Amino acid sequence: MAKRSIRDLLRAPAGFTTLDELDPAATPGAREKARAIADLPELLRELSSQQEQLWAEHTRSLLLVLQGMDTSGKDGTIRHVIGGLNPAGTKIVAFKQPTAVELRHDFLWRIRRGLPEPGQTGIFNRSHYEDVLVVRVHRLVPRPVWAARFARINAFEQELGAGGITVVKVLLHISKREQRERLLARLDDPTKRWKFRPGDLEERKRWPAYLRAYDDVVRRCSTPAAPWYVVPADRKWYRNWAVSQLLLETLREMDPHYPQPSFDPAIYRAKLAAERD
Amino acid sequence: MAKRSIRDLLRAPAGFTTLDELDPAATPGAREKARAIADLPELLRELSSQQEQLWAEHTRSLLLVLQGMDTSGKDGTIRHVIGGLNPAGTKIVAFKQPTAVELRHDFLWRIRRGLPEPGQTGIFNRSHYEDVLVVRVHRLVPRPVWAARFARINAFEQELGAGGITVVKVLLHISKREQRERLLARLDDPTKRWKFRPGDLEERKRWPAYLRAYDDVVRRCSTPAAPWYVVPADRKWYRNWAVSQLLLETLREMDPHYPQPSFDPAIYRAKLAAERD
Repeated sequence: MAKRSIRDLLRAPAGFTTLDELDPAATPGAREKARAIADLPELLRELSSQQEQLWAEHTRSLLLVLQGMDTSGKDGTIRHVIGGLNPAGTKIVAFKQPTAVELRHDFLWRIRRGLPEPGQTGIFNRSHYEDVLVVRVHRLVPRPVWAARFARINAFEQELGAGGITVVKVLLHISKREQRERLLARLDDPTKRWKFRPGDLEERKRWPAYLRAYDDVVRRCSTPAAPWYVVPADRKWYRNWAVSQLLLETLREMDPHYPQPSFDPAIYRAKLAAERD
Repeated sequence: MAKRSIRDLLRAPAGFTTLDELDPAATPGAREKARAIADLPELLRELSSQQEQLWAEHTRSLLLVLQGMDTSGKDGTIRHVIGGLNPAGTKIVAFKQPTAVELRHDFLWRIRRGLPEPGQTGIFNRSHYEDVLVVRVHRLVPRPVWAARFARINAFEQELGAGGITVVKVLLHISKREQRERLLARLDDPTKRWKFRPGDLEERKRWPAYLRAYDDVVRRCSTPAAPWYVVPADRKWYRNWAVSQLLLETLREMDPHYPQPSFDPAIYRAKLAAERD
């Protein structure tokens, strides 16, 4: 178990300027690979137990926002971390290229529709941040339009917090070199090839532009209400361990409990016992 | 592994009349408890592999419709069977008492909105059948209204099949005696008590009325396109094993495959190899 708070270790620092200064292969808070891998099942068990109590409470929600370059491991995180939770209490939404209908609405419209319900653990596979990332890099809207969104996003996330949704924003930070390895793996493995699209290499050429866009995201939208956690993601074992720890620490602080019954169980126990059948 | 098709064993027979004739504690197709429990992980691995390929195809869908009395194990099935699948490729929707907005629409309106997307494995925790079950038992609409729905449902499910959604309808069949045990367990266990509502005992008094309504559901809506499978559910180990087998047999017949790439992987491999960074 990590002795130091993983949130303190991974939270974007106050004077954050650029992702270039953060090593994608680092493993803050973890002692060694074998140990982190061995610890994961117990971590996931406690995570699952906490999430079950959040679900039982049916009042507050947790929302994990996953962002990162292609191949940074958003799907893998969902499979390995979220896959351990009770699926009834989770809600996973993948935000892709906006549809025609979605484009006719404000950019937060589809996001609000995807929010977790009370008690649920929501996972955004990409999110409203795409509207200041891909939209900016591809110049899909004029600069003043996307530039105005940082403040909108901060207000939105503050509103979520006030409404009982605790937001955990995770940026999976990989190196360009690691992305090449993962793209090659997708090309080589017939069970992974479907994840590769020729356009992935065009996006890869825009790596510096995406990095700068991510820098702004972290600089401008890491707030006390919803800080960004930058998770070094070149090592998958670390990524899984770190995201599990982040969620667990957050849930421990939320401290959910099975609700006290609003009725006297003894009365209903007696009724059932008195049945003749 | 079952030698005989579990679908053949559990499909409601042509001359079906009543659930009274089916033993909720039976274990058709399974040899013994220890063996079924030992076989489950391997079963779930193959299920997960098939589901991953369905997801990769992104064309067809699978829809598991779960119905059953309170405590029949819908949530447990989702946790133990669906919990083994890649959560990104699944979509779980729980249908509760209709909201005011939902009531203003046709009963299938909210159902259509909950359908799985291409590639997804959808799970309905309760479904459109509530509109001929609870709605009938509680006389929420006049008889002619609910009575007309059987034909609507059959047409709807045929439409789903034509649209590429394979429907697997599972009725979790428990005994009234077993329900008592499970309600008592919920009352006794502080981690389960939140699942108990005082109204559960009122519903239990309507057991015969629900049984007759379920009889009609199976009689009138078990069609070649979407048959009902009646899964004896007094034994949880059998329920998990049988539902996994049903899904696996269905997926094997659908026979999904990782899609062939529409591009030449060698070209992109060469491009990545030629990079200097």
